[in-house]
Amino acid sequence: MMTTAVIAGVGPGLGESIARRFAAEECDLGLIARSEGYIRKLADDLPTAAVAAPANLAEPTDVEAAFDRIRADLGPVDVLVNHASAAGWTGLMDTDLDAFDRAYEVGPRAGFLCSREAVKDMRAGADNDGTAGTIVFTGATTAVRGREGAVGFSMAKFGARGLAESMARELGPEGIHVAHVVIDGGILTPGVETDTPEEYLDPDAIADSYWHLVQQDRSAWTLELDLRPHVEDF
Amino acid sequence: MMTTAVIAGVGPGLGESIARRFAAEECDLGLIARSEGYIRKLADDLPTAAVAAPANLAEPTDVEAAFDRIRADLGPVDVLVNHASAAGWTGLMDTDLDAFDRAYEVGPRAGFLCSREAVKDMRAGADNDGTAGTIVFTGATTAVRGREGAVGFSMAKFGARGLAESMARELGPEGIHVAHVVIDGGILTPGVETDTPEEYLDPDAIADSYWHLVQQDRSAWTLELDLRPHVEDF
Amino acid sequence: MMTTAVIAGVGPGLGESIARRFAAEECDLGLIARSEGYIRKLADDLPTAAVAAPANLAEPTDVEAAFDRIRADLGPVDVLVNHASAAGWTGLMDTDLDAFDRAYEVGPRAGFLCSREAVKDMRAGADNDGTAGTIVFTGATTAVRGREGAVGFSMAKFGARGLAESMARELGPEGIHVAHVVIDGGILTPGVETDTPEEYLDPDAIADSYWHLVQQDRSAWTLELDLRPHVEDF
Amino acid sequence: MMTTAVIAGVGPGLGESIARRFAAEECDLGLIARSEGYIRKLADDLPTAAVAAPANLAEPTDVEAAFDRIRADLGPVDVLVNHASAAGWTGLMDTDLDAFDRAYEVGPRAGFLCSREAVKDMRAGADNDGTAGTIVFTGATTAVRGREGAVGFSMAKFGARGLAESMARELGPEGIHVAHVVIDGGILTPGVETDTPEEYLDPDAIADSYWHLVQQDRSAWTLELDLRPHVEDF
Repeated sequence: MMTTAVIAGVGPGLGESIARRFAAEECDLGLIARSEGYIRKLADDLPTAAVAAPANLAEPTDVEAAFDRIRADLGPVDVLVNHASAAGWTGLMDTDLDAFDRAYEVGPRAGFLCSREAVKDMRAGADNDGTAGTIVFTGATTAVRGREGAVGFSMAKFGARGLAESMARELGPEGIHVAHVVIDGGILTPGVETDTPEEYLDPDAIADSYWHLVQQDRSAWTLELDLRPHVEDF
Repeated sequence: MMTTAVIAGVGPGLGESIARRFAAEECDLGLIARSEGYIRKLADDLPTAAVAAPANLAEPTDVEAAFDRIRADLGPVDVLVNHASAAGWTGLMDTDLDAFDRAYEVGPRAGFLCSREAVKDMRAGADNDGTAGTIVFTGATTAVRGREGAVGFSMAKFGARGLAESMARELGPEGIHVAHVVIDGGILTPGVETDTPEEYLDPDAIADSYWHLVQQDRSAWTLELDLRPHVEDF
Repeated sequence: MMTTAVIAGVGPGLGESIARRFAAEECDLGLIARSEGYIRKLADDLPTAAVAAPANLAEPTDVEAAFDRIRADLGPVDVLVNHASAAGWTGLMDTDLDAFDRAYEVGPRAGFLCSREAVKDMRAGADNDGTAGTIVFTGATTAVRGREGAVGFSMAKFGARGLAESMARELGPEGIHVAHVVIDGGILTPGVETDTPEEYLDPDAIADSYWHLVQQDRSAWTLELDLRPHVEDF
Repeated sequence: MMTTAVIAGVGPGLGESIARRFAAEECDLGLIARSEGYIRKLADDLPTAAVAAPANLAEPTDVEAAFDRIRADLGPVDVLVNHASAAGWTGLMDTDLDAFDRAYEVGPRAGFLCSREAVKDMRAGADNDGTAGTIVFTGATTAVRGREGAVGFSMAKFGARGLAESMARELGPEGIHVAHVVIDGGILTPGVETDTPEEYLDPDAIADSYWHLVQQDRSAWTLELDLRPHVEDF
């Protein structure tokens, strides 16, 4: 079976590791991000068919156009990773309304828009065994524990988790697996300079668990798992 | 000490019970809701000073004007109840973007806007003992467990809880107590017709716990408590 | 109505503050602890009828005898506080089996034994309105977050919380309110010497919330609340 | 690298599926259970070296002897699955103390005893990359949500989860990965007769996720994941 996976909000680091890992498992890839140059280069570098679909995830028409483009080239979407998030790392009185709104738009709202596009395809394309697709949300510790001095990020990460849980309960019986990954710690993305790399999550190691979620048999699906470095203080 | 309490999103039922209970404890009341007629009548009926400040909580300028009006009449705000929420009780494909946005605007975003107004006053008016104010968010079971067929409500209730937790950690050391109440069950608001009233929460009983939160000494503050009828299946 | 409250595992600090607060609310008190001298002196000092019932809570026959003695003097038990816990603050390889067993025996097992005694009375003595009694478990942050280097304490505090939740679901419909309090931080018990008392929970302030739980109307019961000092880093 | 995995409390169903899956991944297997005939037959049937070590997990000397036997034949233990649990599916007044104690002994206490044995080997045998071993606890929904009418099971499953979390924090920095799996739903073990098998977890599918936990790179370890059938109402 051919699988078409979309990474919404892909960038150097975890998003790219997920794309490469999924491609290594023979998935075709739809790559959505604002930065056209970056995703075009990544698409060219992947071993399977890949489409770069530049979009501002805060713009509903952009999201729709990006999915249409991916579908046109790769067929219906089977797997979606809702990976985007905006910072919002400021306290209550230092966060202006625009920044708070932006955390919502790029977080739970973009997850909502992309999920709607993907579920349209998944519903149409259910396999004979009833497995119709997988949607993974990239979460953070802040999704389960509100963070001091990060009102926008806390609201957005909690909000996306609530959306994921609601969708998991609604869509599971239709064969659509919705999962939420709590990433607890810093990710060793290109550009991080550190003398203690063991304190960071390796994005390729994270991508292993994303792929495991995609592969899970529908008789034993995971809604949520956490990931952290072995030395993380938690 | 005189206390000025604002109920943002007051209506018949729990909001009104909280207003009446706080007034019985000699608080002055600022009442914010869209329906001017209702809050004006409630304000007239309360035994303490009360200001009806009609506002659409989704409108930043409305929120600001409402707080200005309350401050002008009653002085700085000591207690805020973030009580508003929009429905959003539909599944992923049956929820349009406007409804999803509305759940955000009336939920976590209105909580953000009102909290900023209240904290401005609280920071200015800290007591000698360092207690500066109380902010209570009205949550629901859906704030801790995403609900099937309610994507907007799940996102908004989770999001408001994340905001509350973040604020609690940031503002506690300044003497501002932020709490989140998980209401688990239907509330016996006027108009509910039922043969089994014991299956509902009595809004006056809920208001007792809100008042307890306001009264807690800062050496033993609660971030979260749940409330449900004794016969609730949970 | 006369109320008979039992504090199982009372000692100087929180247990005593609860006893004094409940006595101030006109409860009669049954005081259970190993140290006979201490509870006898406390019983004499309370303004209401109080019985000192020395017992090793790890001994089923002791527990039974203590409740019999309290019943004989004060009548059936209406309120129980399961307050005992054993330390168990060592890591996996530094904890011997006896210490692990002791954490179980003084924690969830004593809670089980005391609750059985209390529920016997509560079931027999339900009020006309169906409220039959209250059981409060004193928990800790370690009841919701396993603590590094404290295997026995983590097991015992989680175990008691699981017991409390199970009992709450079973007994609520019979009018018996079971609640669990997560105390997050050090308690300012007599003997604690500190230059920063604001970093500790005041036991009298904690006792206010225990009394609030006892008073809650059965239409709006709390299963769990947390308590911490306003400056606590959490 | 050769891996020696111990399944403590193996039986037909999930335990056996885990054993078969780990053997298919070239692990040697130590099988611990009371029923000698069953584990001897299973050991003979596995494609890798396997030792049947009959033991009553409630008996410390049995546990020690079983691990000694496994070590003697297969070398030091790298992986442990704490899989045993006793029923305890009765309410507060219908559970006698022996049944409550038994739930503790076979649950968290056996997990404690087996983990001590395994960690002895793991500490001695850390790889160059610092990965020293994996311990997985088989949990249940009741480990995170106390179940009505199951006081012993609720206490034991919560208690084991608390132990697992404490151990994860203590042992992670030493390269020992401790994980807890929340199994939510009935398992399709041999002997279950049903017309709706899709409502059950397939034990082989569960075993896939156990193996994923064993394989995770130490830069991205999972403490907890849940598993349920896609049609489960949760």
